[in-house]
Amino acid sequence: MQTVRVALGERAYPIHVGEGLLGRGELIAAVLPQRRVAIVTNDVVAPLHLGRLAAALDAAGVQVATIVVPDGESHKDWATLNAVFDALLAQRCDRQTAIVALGGGVIGDLAGFAAATYQRGVPFVQVPTTLLAQVDSSVGGKTAINHPRGKNMIGAFHQPLAVVADMDTLATLPERELRAGLAEVIKHGAIADAAFFDWLEANIEALVARDRAALAHAVRRSVEIKAAVVARDEREAGERALLNFGHTFGHAIEAGIGFGAWLHGEAVGAGMAMAADLSVRLGCLEPAAAARLRALLARAGLPVAGPALGAERYVELMAVDKKAAAGRLRFIVLDALGAARIADAVPEATLHATLTACSRT
Amino acid sequence: MQTVRVALGERAYPIHVGEGLLGRGELIAAVLPQRRVAIVTNDVVAPLHLGRLAAALDAAGVQVATIVVPDGESHKDWATLNAVFDALLAQRCDRQTAIVALGGGVIGDLAGFAAATYQRGVPFVQVPTTLLAQVDSSVGGKTAINHPRGKNMIGAFHQPLAVVADMDTLATLPERELRAGLAEVIKHGAIADAAFFDWLEANIEALVARDRAALAHAVRRSVEIKAAVVARDEREAGERALLNFGHTFGHAIEAGIGFGAWLHGEAVGAGMAMAADLSVRLGCLEPAAAARLRALLARAGLPVAGPALGAERYVELMAVDKKAAAGRLRFIVLDALGAARIADAVPEATLHATLTACSRT
Repeated sequence: MQTVRVALGERAYPIHVGEGLLGRGELIAAVLPQRRVAIVTNDVVAPLHLGRLAAALDAAGVQVATIVVPDGESHKDWATLNAVFDALLAQRCDRQTAIVALGGGVIGDLAGFAAATYQRGVPFVQVPTTLLAQVDSSVGGKTAINHPRGKNMIGAFHQPLAVVADMDTLATLPERELRAGLAEVIKHGAIADAAFFDWLEANIEALVARDRAALAHAVRRSVEIKAAVVARDEREAGERALLNFGHTFGHAIEAGIGFGAWLHGEAVGAGMAMAADLSVRLGCLEPAAAARLRALLARAGLPVAGPALGAERYVELMAVDKKAAAGRLRFIVLDALGAARIADAVPEATLHATLTACSRT
Repeated sequence: MQTVRVALGERAYPIHVGEGLLGRGELIAAVLPQRRVAIVTNDVVAPLHLGRLAAALDAAGVQVATIVVPDGESHKDWATLNAVFDALLAQRCDRQTAIVALGGGVIGDLAGFAAATYQRGVPFVQVPTTLLAQVDSSVGGKTAINHPRGKNMIGAFHQPLAVVADMDTLATLPERELRAGLAEVIKHGAIADAAFFDWLEANIEALVARDRAALAHAVRRSVEIKAAVVARDEREAGERALLNFGHTFGHAIEAGIGFGAWLHGEAVGAGMAMAADLSVRLGCLEPAAAARLRALLARAGLPVAGPALGAERYVELMAVDKKAAAGRLRFIVLDALGAARIADAVPEATLHATLTACSRT
């Protein structure tokens, strides 16, 4: 097991990465204010992992309630959130009862927002079971539900007390989800670490084949990069926005074709290809670097073009995105592989050229 | 105008108390990150005060959107909150658009929770127009909506950038609401300041008669007391719980007879009489002091006994209250007028005696 710390002062917390961690209840018990938790999970993850985690917590002297919601992005909504609140109240969970999210990004976001708002905030622990959640959404404290007008429109910042990323859970992950998770891994290399990007080019097939050592390295390096960014800018006042590379396009894709039709990582994959294309058109990125990113995404089995929504519709969808500041669209662009920055003033014609060139016809 | 500061480090903010403040748009404009606001108010307050505030903000160069929701505690729910989100999205409000709550405690709690969670948190300003909101709910950052199983069950801590308490708004306040607001004023004296309690005994009729100088003094002293407590314990880890004097009983009353049947201040009035009775039965408070509190509440026109719900039902309702810690009921009791503390271990028989003695038959 390796442990990465997120340096956030009194809200600092450990991210444990390794094998067999679901069976180590003491990792969670150690951070609880009271030995009582409510595990929130879904009906796909529960049969795979809930028994093991609950037994381990029980063995560590922790009283466990469980709340199982339906699987899927379409359930990251108010109705499901309210069902979680109902269950917490029915089981008399109080302000000291920690909520443990066991599942992928949807469960982490939903359970995290429940933890942020139940009785004005209760302790929270993340146990991510997908690659995407392990390398991205479980770290950094962003929680949310979707609104019909936009993804993650309603949410809060609520840091967990700990994150426990067990590599064993990746063994049962559907291949499509594994590939989607690789999108965020590639993103971390693209925005912050050229050497890690090189390593990914050399190891992408091993990652797709679930080589355990390769996966553990990719997860650890990803959370190190993300933890460092979050520690410097917890509330996304500046640098943290760089983690949204590919996401302005990606969220438009998800909203445009309906949440859940593409996996988040797939939309981000296409979104990064689009953002790289935009970077080239703006004159900041070498065409060869954009081609390398596209090739790596393709080898990971990710889309490198968006669906055919039409440029106008893309712009409309992006305008309601949270990352629009004062009505202007905002993009993360690359100056090189490993170096990203915010671009506020993108000419409309350039954006249209990217949207036309990088979406399916 | 007098200004009280809430000392919360980087989240510190001013509370302005005085006359004619709705017309001074610069008080709000000065704290905004961007000259754009969405005023959230209700259909009773809007005709009285919205025009004046909107014109003053406009004159200060602030772009104003308005969102009007139905009046009443029954609308402090998810449906109304979602209507606010819909309006914010329809008007393309972004992360830099401040939400301004113009109204009483319901509007402040609801708009505040919208501000806490819209796009994971936007700037917030409180313009309380009821005595209760001015002396209590607008200060301290507590925001929430109700859940069918309990009041304020879903919420967040989200401090405002400023609070603007205009005494002029009290002129149009229904008398019943004015009296309800006095409950929280009396509470501040009872838990923290014996001299202020003495002053209230000497001036309660002037307050009920809306003597402006008396009201301004009562509001300023109340927010000073509350601001000092909040500054020492923002997240209610300890001392801040003292502000809940009368509220464990009060919330049970509100939940037991249906939210909105009694005003919050009325329920707290009866709740304080009950908590004082409990304090006497526990042997910490002189009977004469409890009698003084009861007499002052009665002179303010507030109830000094709860509705006839039955002791068992009271206990049941209190058990789901947020303030129950680890399944145990928790009460704020008085050692004297001006001195409160937390009592965790109240014998069941003592509690039953209070519930029987202090509720209507």
